[in-house]
Amino acid sequence: MPHINVEETLPGIRSLLAFSPETAEPIGKLANLLLRNNEGLSPADSELIATYVSYLNDCFYCTQSHGAIASCYLGTNNNLVEQVKQDYRQADISDKLKALLDIAGSVQKGGKYVTAEQIEHAKTLGATDKDIHDTVLIAAAFCMFNRYVDGLAANTPADLSTYELRAKQVAEKGYGNHIYTEKQPS
Amino acid sequence: MPHINVEETLPGIRSLLAFSPETAEPIGKLANLLLRNNEGLSPADSELIATYVSYLNDCFYCTQSHGAIASCYLGTNNNLVEQVKQDYRQADISDKLKALLDIAGSVQKGGKYVTAEQIEHAKTLGATDKDIHDTVLIAAAFCMFNRYVDGLAANTPADLSTYELRAKQVAEKGYGNHIYTEKQPS
Repeated sequence: MPHINVEETLPGIRSLLAFSPETAEPIGKLANLLLRNNEGLSPADSELIATYVSYLNDCFYCTQSHGAIASCYLGTNNNLVEQVKQDYRQADISDKLKALLDIAGSVQKGGKYVTAEQIEHAKTLGATDKDIHDTVLIAAAFCMFNRYVDGLAANTPADLSTYELRAKQVAEKGYGNHIYTEKQPS
Repeated sequence: MPHINVEETLPGIRSLLAFSPETAEPIGKLANLLLRNNEGLSPADSELIATYVSYLNDCFYCTQSHGAIASCYLGTNNNLVEQVKQDYRQADISDKLKALLDIAGSVQKGGKYVTAEQIEHAKTLGATDKDIHDTVLIAAAFCMFNRYVDGLAANTPADLSTYELRAKQVAEKGYGNHIYTEKQPS
């Protein structure tokens, strides 16, 4: 049961965004800039980083939600989400993305865990300053989102098919306020 | 040395906001809503929560910055910042704020560390749903800001007097883009 009185029909962060529409606005804007930006990291790569950090933070709602959104972008390649969660070093992804996931994993533990060697390695593999900035900020932002959802004990649907339906909605329309004002895919 | 090529004259998060003005906009807006909102938690209480979480995350820049801003609001009572960092349970603050700091400390470890008992205790002491929501989101947001600053190894001035000068600027003008576009207090 959620720790505060939120709309019960809304799952996860959606119920919190509806509870606090003022803060929902910059949160949605930040999510769109980080996860749906076509300069630098692709939306699929950004969502894989988000999913991996949420998995490390043991946030079921965010892991399932962003894994499903990554799968929408990846299409037939959607087994990658499971590969990245289980062992991204062996996954069928670029070496550059592996190096960025190394950095994201360090950020999840704490900012000071990121090493100069990890940064240098990512740069050698073609990561730009913007890629590194965005990776660190995506990982840091999911340390916020995961804590926001679980810290308020937001509802976490157990039916995995509901995540796929909502993922399609986000892949099409982004992270605007429609995610808590429109009827939820059920 | 910062991990990416940022403006060297700007300290801490200011250099990162200047590097990425697009994401700086929602980040500044979120900070203003969480830390300078006169409904519910006072700006002083919000900054004390921010300082405490930054201290737990061992982020020197954010601990000093937000501690100095809290001190600006607290005026002659500014020894409270040290008291809260060292042992808030013995500090000269309300029982309600102590209960909210319990929650913030749990959020810093991870969302699932927040217990129903902590929430109930805070409510018994007068915390509203909005107070609890804002406490969790402030603590979660500082788990982002702290990782953003240290994950990119942003410059951290060692001279403590510079934090006081910048704190006055924030206390007067808030977290708008002036914090990285205007000349820095030196």
